[in-house]
Amino acid sequence: MPFRCVTILGPGLLGGSLGLALKTLPSPPRVQFWGRSTESLLLAKERGAGDTFTSDLREAVTGSDLVVLCTPVGVMLRLAPKLAPLLAPGTTVTDVGSVKESLVRTLPGLLGANARFVGSHPMAGSEQAGIDAARPDLYRGAVCMVTPDLSTDPGALDSVRRFWADLGCAVRELSPAAHDQMVASVSHLPHTVAAALVNLVCRPGQVAVKLCGNGFRDTTRIASGPAGMWAEILMENRHHVGTAISGMIEQLGEFAGALERQDQEGLLALLERARGSRESLKEASKDAQSDE
Amino acid sequence: MPFRCVTILGPGLLGGSLGLALKTLPSPPRVQFWGRSTESLLLAKERGAGDTFTSDLREAVTGSDLVVLCTPVGVMLRLAPKLAPLLAPGTTVTDVGSVKESLVRTLPGLLGANARFVGSHPMAGSEQAGIDAARPDLYRGAVCMVTPDLSTDPGALDSVRRFWADLGCAVRELSPAAHDQMVASVSHLPHTVAAALVNLVCRPGQVAVKLCGNGFRDTTRIASGPAGMWAEILMENRHHVGTAISGMIEQLGEFAGALERQDQEGLLALLERARGSRESLKEASKDAQSDE
Repeated sequence: MPFRCVTILGPGLLGGSLGLALKTLPSPPRVQFWGRSTESLLLAKERGAGDTFTSDLREAVTGSDLVVLCTPVGVMLRLAPKLAPLLAPGTTVTDVGSVKESLVRTLPGLLGANARFVGSHPMAGSEQAGIDAARPDLYRGAVCMVTPDLSTDPGALDSVRRFWADLGCAVRELSPAAHDQMVASVSHLPHTVAAALVNLVCRPGQVAVKLCGNGFRDTTRIASGPAGMWAEILMENRHHVGTAISGMIEQLGEFAGALERQDQEGLLALLERARGSRESLKEASKDAQSDE
Repeated sequence: MPFRCVTILGPGLLGGSLGLALKTLPSPPRVQFWGRSTESLLLAKERGAGDTFTSDLREAVTGSDLVVLCTPVGVMLRLAPKLAPLLAPGTTVTDVGSVKESLVRTLPGLLGANARFVGSHPMAGSEQAGIDAARPDLYRGAVCMVTPDLSTDPGALDSVRRFWADLGCAVRELSPAAHDQMVASVSHLPHTVAAALVNLVCRPGQVAVKLCGNGFRDTTRIASGPAGMWAEILMENRHHVGTAISGMIEQLGEFAGALERQDQEGLLALLERARGSRESLKEASKDAQSDE
């Protein structure tokens, strides 16, 4: 573990799970929590997610060599200028935000010269939210992307990579723009698709609701996610998400076309391609979890 | 159990699981399997899914008071005229096909006067196929739809309802047309959506493939299903599936519109609606499994 004292800002699902995960390490760092809500701080304390719990930002970052921003993006942007005068020179700062391009462009300026910022996005989470859903193994086996740009300090980048790897993540490096395009495809579009499917099928009074099988349940599980957080994420990444939605509409059109033309072979080819790709995803998953 | 001797045509996932489920009942009926493939019959035998296993149709239905068609729809239509002269008067016949309107219209004529046909659709299954994936609890807690029309024998309908209920299904009755519209929404559209999403995101050489999280995996799980079977199902139900795809494209357009207008409140409302409906689905599921 490349850090001796880690400050976690925001004791929610991601922050709480991070504290719990750090505390299960063989030589755990000191963990200092900051939060706005006393209730969440108390719950994090009860669960043994850290050593200190405070709503005082100065107290929370004192002695810390890594600060992890685990709040919604809007809160990160408001916290950063307040953090700037409180950080010791050379403090590493990272975050867990799901959209990186604008954050990586904006945060270093707001955090000031004492901070060495590295953008992170651990692709862990669930349809649940809050400290209640936190668990020590949330990050284990998850892909964590780090998104350096030209201004990123190489030493800080290296430490942040090792930090996530020590928690069991498979660490990958991408530019912030490539990251945002990629998550639009593999995360933000699936969420949008799941929500759109629910909004179409589960209309009030529809008989369909009571007759949904496991296929429908799996396909729409993520639509249960916290709406406010997702509205923020999708809007933040709206250009890439918009492009992804257009691509999805085009793909659906291919299926509709094959059905309309009664083109059984064309339909079979579309389904075969999907099946093959989805099967190879199972293999890719095994690789990702073992090779780092 | 309203039947003493059940013949299962087709020892695949659904047929094999049916045999296994029947054999776990307190007073199991005799179970006679028919299949074209000796290999599948042998596997069904090894797993103890029934009492007799044959490729001879006459032998398979001798003494049977219920015949369950568990083959693909195309095979059902070819088997039915061969079954007709072999059935004892009053034999109940049902099926497990996922599209009902054309089957319920066509099969009774092909099966002849000795058969009392009742359409069934147990909404159980998985992305896997074949006797290898069969399991005795596949039907437990699943919704099973029975789809009578005006020509259906009320006694046979009642027996078939009790048959599925005894296996742990929540039985529902719908007209064949209402059924096909409903499954287009809750089953065929989700499959199409999952396949379209995979075809968009998992293109060869895309970095995205290695970075898919659990959300993507859940949303696309059903795209692993057997392509040939799904091509047949979707084509069979093409009118209702086409309408459902159009509805889906419209819903996606609402998300795209909110993003383009930077309408955060509108976007939040769409996500909140989806979240609320998806949550109430969890409740509906509990009801469905306990009230029949």
